[in-house]
Amino acid sequence: MNTAEYLIKKLEELGINDFFGLPGDYNFEIINAVQENENTKWINCTNELNAGYAADGYAREKGYGAMITTYGVGELSAMNSVAGSYAENVPVINIVGAPNSKLLEEKKLIHHQFSNPEPYAFIEAFNSVTQAAAFLTRDNAKIEIDRVLKTFVKEKKPVYICIPQDIAQLEISDKDVDYGWLSDRGALKTVTEKISEKIKNSERPIILADVLTRRFNAVRELKTFVEKSEIPVTNFVMGMGIIDSNYKNYLGTYLADYGNPSAKKYLETTDCLIAVGSVYSDVNSLGFKLPYNINSHVAIYGTYTYVDGVKYENVKMSDVLREISETIEQKSYDFEKSELGCDEVEAGEELTSDYIYSQLQGFLKEDDIIFSEIGLVPYGIFGLKLPKSVSFNVQALWCSIGWATPAAFGAGMAKPNSRIVLVTGDGAHQISALEVGNMLKYGLKPVIIVINNNGYTIERMLSGKFDNEFNDIVNINYSKLARIFDGDIWSTRVNTAEDFEKALRVTAIMKKLCYIEACVDKSDSPAMARAFLCGNKIEQPKRKVKQKKEVKLSKNIDAKYSTIVHESLQIEE
Amino acid sequence: MNTAEYLIKKLEELGINDFFGLPGDYNFEIINAVQENENTKWINCTNELNAGYAADGYAREKGYGAMITTYGVGELSAMNSVAGSYAENVPVINIVGAPNSKLLEEKKLIHHQFSNPEPYAFIEAFNSVTQAAAFLTRDNAKIEIDRVLKTFVKEKKPVYICIPQDIAQLEISDKDVDYGWLSDRGALKTVTEKISEKIKNSERPIILADVLTRRFNAVRELKTFVEKSEIPVTNFVMGMGIIDSNYKNYLGTYLADYGNPSAKKYLETTDCLIAVGSVYSDVNSLGFKLPYNINSHVAIYGTYTYVDGVKYENVKMSDVLREISETIEQKSYDFEKSELGCDEVEAGEELTSDYIYSQLQGFLKEDDIIFSEIGLVPYGIFGLKLPKSVSFNVQALWCSIGWATPAAFGAGMAKPNSRIVLVTGDGAHQISALEVGNMLKYGLKPVIIVINNNGYTIERMLSGKFDNEFNDIVNINYSKLARIFDGDIWSTRVNTAEDFEKALRVTAIMKKLCYIEACVDKSDSPAMARAFLCGNKIEQPKRKVKQKKEVKLSKNIDAKYSTIVHESLQIEE
Repeated sequence: MNTAEYLIKKLEELGINDFFGLPGDYNFEIINAVQENENTKWINCTNELNAGYAADGYAREKGYGAMITTYGVGELSAMNSVAGSYAENVPVINIVGAPNSKLLEEKKLIHHQFSNPEPYAFIEAFNSVTQAAAFLTRDNAKIEIDRVLKTFVKEKKPVYICIPQDIAQLEISDKDVDYGWLSDRGALKTVTEKISEKIKNSERPIILADVLTRRFNAVRELKTFVEKSEIPVTNFVMGMGIIDSNYKNYLGTYLADYGNPSAKKYLETTDCLIAVGSVYSDVNSLGFKLPYNINSHVAIYGTYTYVDGVKYENVKMSDVLREISETIEQKSYDFEKSELGCDEVEAGEELTSDYIYSQLQGFLKEDDIIFSEIGLVPYGIFGLKLPKSVSFNVQALWCSIGWATPAAFGAGMAKPNSRIVLVTGDGAHQISALEVGNMLKYGLKPVIIVINNNGYTIERMLSGKFDNEFNDIVNINYSKLARIFDGDIWSTRVNTAEDFEKALRVTAIMKKLCYIEACVDKSDSPAMARAFLCGNKIEQPKRKVKQKKEVKLSKNIDAKYSTIVHESLQIEE
Repeated sequence: MNTAEYLIKKLEELGINDFFGLPGDYNFEIINAVQENENTKWINCTNELNAGYAADGYAREKGYGAMITTYGVGELSAMNSVAGSYAENVPVINIVGAPNSKLLEEKKLIHHQFSNPEPYAFIEAFNSVTQAAAFLTRDNAKIEIDRVLKTFVKEKKPVYICIPQDIAQLEISDKDVDYGWLSDRGALKTVTEKISEKIKNSERPIILADVLTRRFNAVRELKTFVEKSEIPVTNFVMGMGIIDSNYKNYLGTYLADYGNPSAKKYLETTDCLIAVGSVYSDVNSLGFKLPYNINSHVAIYGTYTYVDGVKYENVKMSDVLREISETIEQKSYDFEKSELGCDEVEAGEELTSDYIYSQLQGFLKEDDIIFSEIGLVPYGIFGLKLPKSVSFNVQALWCSIGWATPAAFGAGMAKPNSRIVLVTGDGAHQISALEVGNMLKYGLKPVIIVINNNGYTIERMLSGKFDNEFNDIVNINYSKLARIFDGDIWSTRVNTAEDFEKALRVTAIMKKLCYIEACVDKSDSPAMARAFLCGNKIEQPKRKVKQKKEVKLSKNIDAKYSTIVHESLQIEE
């Protein structure tokens, strides 16, 4: 077994079956290893940044993700995606194919090198954005793979392995190594005792279920803890969907000053916070409003836990949750619940974001995998009451526009039988839109909603320069863009509330990739965004009101929806 | 004057009038400074990698280029472009807008940070791919700007400056600093004496005019030297266009074993090579065939010179050339000249690359700015005899596919009155194709030729796995893609030699952006590529022969070319 084959085999054992990337002169040997393993598949992406995002989306749904890039040119193009996975604790490996190690040692001036070759410049750069990085040599190949993968499994953060062509083909021992790790028993005992004691003495405890619980694969243990303890539970926005929103003790998403007053009141006045996998960031907490330090209560992270400000290392999140659940005594707690979900918005003359999200509330269904692009979109989605068992994904810490489209592609490859719903804005979508072509190529059928407000409206709001041209972008007809690829797609451009509602109804019954370009005014934004981003201080320019056109759909037409509605929605084919 | 304004002013003095980038939450202050300087302009790009490439193309034509990105997400997306500029000695500055320095010092968990904030992680990564990098603070802002720009001017390589929001607005002294540098007089004297002596004693000297001569702004001095000395002159492929191909002592491009036997013979048997600004790399030299080390003769670089293997530091390329020219004695040398330019290829039934390049030979004209994407395209263009005063650009060392389209956009902004001719392949073009939208937005009218061979044919040839799916990419209808933007564009898709020839004729007279998608068989490649990349060993699958259709163009129709030809070429509008 050669080095490349060994690495691919170990990754396959972690659950990675799809490897995203682009071929390059120096990574053929690694791609071969993927193609020759009968359980793994090579997936071409349209560029390396997208490949990295796809691997990230895949990892969010499947636990781990992988990309394969080529030396210098390919790997560096993916660096932002790797940094994003690092920020958000998404375990993605970047496997890089490098030139023959002899050429590197001789500093031969081959392509993808600097004019004064610095063969290790790129791994040095990646050291800044990964948890572990290795440059394989004849002597260290197996040892380094095992070291890096152990970190990958424990820390759930990106790692990097660069493999010269000759080393990829080097025969190595395939002796199995266990990448797992165990909690420190002593620390675990102390931590669970202290937490149990704190809960026992608390009058108003609350569990904060956040996104890292998913990353560290401890959702089941968290739910057991929640249900056994009957402690009321809330979540930050990135943790939406972890707790079923119909669960009796679920307070809904904590939205700080922007909704859900019960969750706000309870979380801000608790005497015992149990924060599980939480990320206390500006967007995730909607503005750092908690009147205490999370770690000064109980904060359970993937590999360590804080109790009363003291950090206990080497305790697994799932172990901590399991141990507390075993001894916890059920109590009942007093709390009020606000009504969850966004207000119903009536269809006006114009299409607005607020209308779009109120419609999405009804459109989303159980088991959906939702991808929210960053920008204005999240502030529409944060207010929703999500159906049971959905998986909700938003890159709310790293906030790199362009992430969601390829990430949704990756998630679709990870879970081909689930419905993917991607909601994005035009400013973000243009960065990575061509990955829609790969969704078609690989037979995925996501629902894609592109809210087109003609530029960076969030930056219009934040910069205070509403009409400055730096917030304008190239005008693209997205519903046309969706049709430049081979493949079966239904795409439409809608400008009115009525047409949007109809397009959603079509989408609900279509058996193909559906792509809705929803055009709103450039001043339009979700209500929560207006409040959170600029304290409602941005003047919303008056909207032009169009004459509403009467369009009726008879029952007969409903039956043939997929064709007839094309016409009434003025679809360009 | 604040920090941002000072930096923009100093860059404007270097000749930078256009700043490419994307706005982000942390770089508004820098964009403001660009917009408020009456000589500088902000140019939105479709993503940061493209912005970096655009700045690179701009710098290739104008001397220096600049991009503005945002902290983390934006800057890292541009890293590959910066590394490419570094490899190829293109002076591009990446100006990054960072959060307020107080937030960074407190390690506040704001967006675009890692979950355990490492505020300086990104500058660390950029240290690997830039010549100088600075993170501005209250105390060092002016000193660091001046230090970094001095390196920028001297070394002509990328630099990096990160400016927190508060520091961008900090008032600083705008006392002028001279960024120029002077040659070491002693070293300069020694070097020129030694070179003059070597030339005097040589029977078969030859000048190798290569690409770094342009970067270090010494083309005029080189030409004076060439003409005064009458020493025969050749160039590597990246140096094409520096010497007028009709100049009497010009031997044409050195093509190693793949053409132009006279240049090969003379260069490989010279007793005194004077290499000016040369990059002796695999692609640029077409395979490292020189039987000697370039630096063991005379090799003049931007800031240092080798004579007989000895390196003399701190001597400017332009000074060395000027000094030698002043004392050189004119001699006449014996040499043969091969006929330059590619063979005429007859139009066959099918469209082939070889036909395309033979047609381009006649299509290119004086003063064109040519951008050749990397991949198979260069091997078509390397064999051409370029018209006088063209500027030829190819990224033949870094070889990052996707570079050429946005780089051509940048060059168009630098030289809006020149005709840009961009030749690219589908595999590369898909990576950055949306930048065509910006060409339209900013009123540029380049000629774009996309050779569509349905995937990575160069990798098909190099990997030896011709039909492996990893060489297939998403099928895109490029001539349709070109029409998803606002703006006036003429685009067509051609499949036959005859239609390609007609499309070129249309393009020659069109007063708008012209975009030709030229479809060739997936086995098709230029003859030089077949020879150089795989020793003609790849079997070229047999081509399907289509029936040639008779299409005549009368004189009348010629007069109304722009409309009538649309029909005869079966343009989809």
